[in-house]
Amino acid sequence: MFQMRSAPAVRFAVYVLRGIGQVMLQDNFITGFLFLVGIFVSSWVSGLYALLGTVVSTWTAIFLKAPANEVDAGIYGFNGTLTGLALAAYLSHGIALIVFVIIASMFVALTTAAIRHIAGPRGHALTAPFVITTWIFLGALIVYLGLPNAGAAEPLQQPSYAAALTRLSALDVILGILNGPAQVMLQENPWTGAIFLVAIAFNSRVSCLAALLGSAIGVGVGWYMGGTPHSIHQGLFGFNGVLTAIVLGGILFLLNRTTVLLTVLGVYVSTVLFGSLVVILKPLALPALTAPFVLVTWVYVLACAKFPRLASLVVVSPGTPEGNLRAARDPLVEKEQGEVP
Amino acid sequence: MFQMRSAPAVRFAVYVLRGIGQVMLQDNFITGFLFLVGIFVSSWVSGLYALLGTVVSTWTAIFLKAPANEVDAGIYGFNGTLTGLALAAYLSHGIALIVFVIIASMFVALTTAAIRHIAGPRGHALTAPFVITTWIFLGALIVYLGLPNAGAAEPLQQPSYAAALTRLSALDVILGILNGPAQVMLQENPWTGAIFLVAIAFNSRVSCLAALLGSAIGVGVGWYMGGTPHSIHQGLFGFNGVLTAIVLGGILFLLNRTTVLLTVLGVYVSTVLFGSLVVILKPLALPALTAPFVLVTWVYVLACAKFPRLASLVVVSPGTPEGNLRAARDPLVEKEQGEVP
Amino acid sequence: MFQMRSAPAVRFAVYVLRGIGQVMLQDNFITGFLFLVGIFVSSWVSGLYALLGTVVSTWTAIFLKAPANEVDAGIYGFNGTLTGLALAAYLSHGIALIVFVIIASMFVALTTAAIRHIAGPRGHALTAPFVITTWIFLGALIVYLGLPNAGAAEPLQQPSYAAALTRLSALDVILGILNGPAQVMLQENPWTGAIFLVAIAFNSRVSCLAALLGSAIGVGVGWYMGGTPHSIHQGLFGFNGVLTAIVLGGILFLLNRTTVLLTVLGVYVSTVLFGSLVVILKPLALPALTAPFVLVTWVYVLACAKFPRLASLVVVSPGTPEGNLRAARDPLVEKEQGEVP
Repeated sequence: MFQMRSAPAVRFAVYVLRGIGQVMLQDNFITGFLFLVGIFVSSWVSGLYALLGTVVSTWTAIFLKAPANEVDAGIYGFNGTLTGLALAAYLSHGIALIVFVIIASMFVALTTAAIRHIAGPRGHALTAPFVITTWIFLGALIVYLGLPNAGAAEPLQQPSYAAALTRLSALDVILGILNGPAQVMLQENPWTGAIFLVAIAFNSRVSCLAALLGSAIGVGVGWYMGGTPHSIHQGLFGFNGVLTAIVLGGILFLLNRTTVLLTVLGVYVSTVLFGSLVVILKPLALPALTAPFVLVTWVYVLACAKFPRLASLVVVSPGTPEGNLRAARDPLVEKEQGEVP
Repeated sequence: MFQMRSAPAVRFAVYVLRGIGQVMLQDNFITGFLFLVGIFVSSWVSGLYALLGTVVSTWTAIFLKAPANEVDAGIYGFNGTLTGLALAAYLSHGIALIVFVIIASMFVALTTAAIRHIAGPRGHALTAPFVITTWIFLGALIVYLGLPNAGAAEPLQQPSYAAALTRLSALDVILGILNGPAQVMLQENPWTGAIFLVAIAFNSRVSCLAALLGSAIGVGVGWYMGGTPHSIHQGLFGFNGVLTAIVLGGILFLLNRTTVLLTVLGVYVSTVLFGSLVVILKPLALPALTAPFVLVTWVYVLACAKFPRLASLVVVSPGTPEGNLRAARDPLVEKEQGEVP
Repeated sequence: MFQMRSAPAVRFAVYVLRGIGQVMLQDNFITGFLFLVGIFVSSWVSGLYALLGTVVSTWTAIFLKAPANEVDAGIYGFNGTLTGLALAAYLSHGIALIVFVIIASMFVALTTAAIRHIAGPRGHALTAPFVITTWIFLGALIVYLGLPNAGAAEPLQQPSYAAALTRLSALDVILGILNGPAQVMLQENPWTGAIFLVAIAFNSRVSCLAALLGSAIGVGVGWYMGGTPHSIHQGLFGFNGVLTAIVLGGILFLLNRTTVLLTVLGVYVSTVLFGSLVVILKPLALPALTAPFVLVTWVYVLACAKFPRLASLVVVSPGTPEGNLRAARDPLVEKEQGEVP
C-alpha cells in the first residue's frame, strides 16, 4: 500500500532501505534505515559506500527488469550493500574505489540472479553473490594497491590465533558479543552492534535473540579454537554465527526444540568453518567473509529433501519467526508475507 | 528378513556395520564387521573413533527420520566412519576430540543428505560429505592444536616426492599394494589391508580383484610421478585408486572390456589427481583425502547423459559386480539388490 | 551436405578442424584450419600437440557414441585442443608428455560430457573441461618434473605486477592487443594473433571486432591493475577478454546497445578476475587459464532466468552474431544454425 501512492524516488528509497535490512534477513525498511544509522555511527564513509553499493545493484536489477516483488523486498540490494562495505574495508578510498564499487555492484546483481536461479524456487542465494564478487575484486585490487606478493598482503580485520587458550575478560566477552552483529557489516563498534540489535528487534524479537545467541556461541567457540582476546572482542568470530542463528532459528525453520538444537549445531559448525577458512584462505590473501554462513545454511536447506523431520519444519513462505509461528498455528489468519533472499 | 525379527539394538548394530562396509561400497554387514576387525588390528583407538563416527551419523539420520531403506543400507553411516577415522588420524586424542567427532558426525549426516539431494536419484554422494566435513574441522582444529601458521602445519601421512625417479624394492611394491586398501580407512598396516581384501572378497570377488588392481596402478603411477619409496609403501598413492576401481569396475557399470578400459583410465586419472591435490592443498595445510575418487566417479556418472555407450553399461539398481552381471543375463531372476551411496 | 559424400577420414578431419575452430566459438572448419596454421606459425611442436589433443578427444567421443551433430560441430574437440596446448606449454616435451596428452584428452572428452549435462540444454560447458583437466594434470606433473616444492614451481607465462602504474609504449599496446587472441591458444606471437583475427573474420566480422575489443579492454584493465609492460605486451591480460567478448557480444545474446554495454562489463570483470586468480592461484602453482571467461559467461547465462531484459536478448539457437541478427529480423528465412559448446 505504502509504495502504491508514493513517488518513484520514494519507492526506490524504500527498496534500497529494505535491501540494507535484508543483509540480516529483515524484510523491513525501517530496520534497514536503523542499520544504515548504525553504520554511519561507526564510519560515515562506510555508510556512503554501503548506500552506493545498494543503490547500484538495486538499479541494475530494475534496469534488467527483475521481478517487481523481489526488487521491492530488497533481494537485489543487500549483496550490493555488503560488496560496497567490504571493498571499502579492505581497499584505500578514492575515485578509483568508487568506480570499482559501482562496477562490482552491477556485477553482484547479475550474480544474485544467477545464484537464485541455481538455488531453485525453494533455495536461497543468501550472501553468496557478495562473497564471490568480493573475492573476484579483492584478489586483483590488493595487487593493484602495490602489494606485489600475495603472501605479503595483510587484509584488515582477520582474526589471529594464540598458541594456547587465552584468558578473556568480561569486557572482551561483552564487546565480542556486541561487535559480532557489527562485523556482519564489516564494522567494529559496540554501539553499532547495539543499534543493529535494536533494529532487528524492531522487526522481530526472536531474530534479535537469535543474533545475540549466535554471537555468544561465536565468542565461545572462537576462544576455544585459540582466538586471541583481541580477535574475539573485535567480533570476528561472531558474525557468521549471527547470520546462521537468524536464518535457521525461526525464519527458514519453524521454531521448536529440534530447531533450537539444530540451530546451535549450525552456528557451531559455521564458526568452526570460519576458523578453518581463515587458515585455508590465508596463503591466498582472501578473507573468509560470510562464506561459512552460506555453506552451512545451504546444507540445512538441501538436507530437507532426505530428512522428513527437518522438512516438516520448513516454512513455505518465510516471514519473521513470530509470523511463521502464528501462521502455523492458525492457517486461516493471513500472514504478512516476507521474502527471503 | 533378518532385521524384521531382531531387537532394535541388534538392528542398529547391523546398520552401523553396513555403514562401515559401505566405506568401500560393500552393502554387507559381515564385510563391515571384518573391516572393523581390520581397523582394530591396526589401532584399537582408531577402531573406537570409527565406531563413534558411524554410530553418531547413523543415529542423526534416524533422529531426522531418513528413509528406512537408506539407513538400513548404511548410507548415512560410512561418511561418519571416515570422519571419525580422519579426525583421529590428524588430531591429538582426548575428550576434546571425542566432542569434535560427535559434532562433526552429526553434521556429516546433514551433508550426506544435502549432497544426495544435489546428486539426484541416479547420482551418488560417495565420500564427498566426509571430505567436506573433515576439511571444515581440520583447518580450524589444526590451528587450535597450537600450530599458528598454516604453512607450518604438517598433517600426518602426506606423500613426499623425490627429485627423480627412485628404485622400488619388491617389498615396497607388495607393502604398497596391501597398504592401499588400508589407507582408505587412514591406516598403514599391511595386515589390515589384507583383512580388508578378504572382507571385500567375502561380498564380491570381482570387487576384491578391482581393489587389488586399483592399488597396484596407484603404486605404479605414484612411482612414475616421483613418489618416494616410503610414500609408496605407505599406500598413500593407492587408496583413491582402490575406491575408483571398486565403484567403476562392476558396481556402477556392467563389467565388460570397455568397462575395464574405462576403469583403468579412471584409476589412472584419480591417482594423478591425488598427486595434484597433495601439491595444490599443501599451502592450505589440507590433506587430499578421497576427493580424487569422488570427482572422477562423478565425471563418469554425469558423462553417461551424453555418451550412450557408457549409458548402456549403467546398472539401474547396482549390487555386487557378480549380481549385476547375473541380473543382466537373466532379467527374470530376482537380484539381491544393494544400495550404492 | 559436405560430410555426407565424404570418406570417413575426410569427415573426421572436418570434425577435428571444427573442434579447433570452436576454441574461439567459431563453428567453421576453415576458421579452424586457419587457427591451426596460426599455431604452426608460432610453434610447430605446439601445433602437433593441438592436433593430438583434438584428435584423441574427438575420437573418444565417437567411440563412446556421442550425438553425431555434436561431434560434427566440434563440441568434443576444442577442449582437447587446449589441453594439448596447455600441457605442451607448461611441461617439458618428450614421449612421456605425448602419453599424458593422450590420457588427458581422453578424460577431457568425459569431462565435457559431464559438464554439458550439468549445464543443461540451455547451458554451455565452454572451456571448463579444459581448465579442470589441465589443473588435474599440471599440479601433479609439475612435481614430477623435479620441482618438489609447489611454491618454487614457476609456470611459464604468468603475468607479473609492478608496484605502481607503468608507462606503456604504443608498441606494447599493439603487441598486447595482437597477442591477446594468440594467448587463447597459449601462444605469444603477434603474427599468430593476426592470423587468428583473420580466421575469425572469415566466419564473422562482428566476432573479429569483439575479439579486438576484448583484447584492447584487457590491455587497459591489465595496465590499470599494475601489470608490467612485459606481461601486457605478451597478451596475458587479454585472452579471457577475447573469449568473453566473442561469446557475449552477439553469439549468445542478440547484438544491441544493451548487449554492448553488458559485454563491456563482462570483459572488464573477466579481466579483473583473471588478475585475481593469478594472485590467488600463485601459492598453488596453478595458472588461471580461461577460468575467468567460463565463470563470467556462466553468470550471464544463469542470470537470464531472473532478468527478462537479458532473457529477451538470448539467441535460441546461436550461430554467428550476423546470422543471429538476420534470423531475428526475418524469422522466416532459415538460418544456418551453429552449435555453441
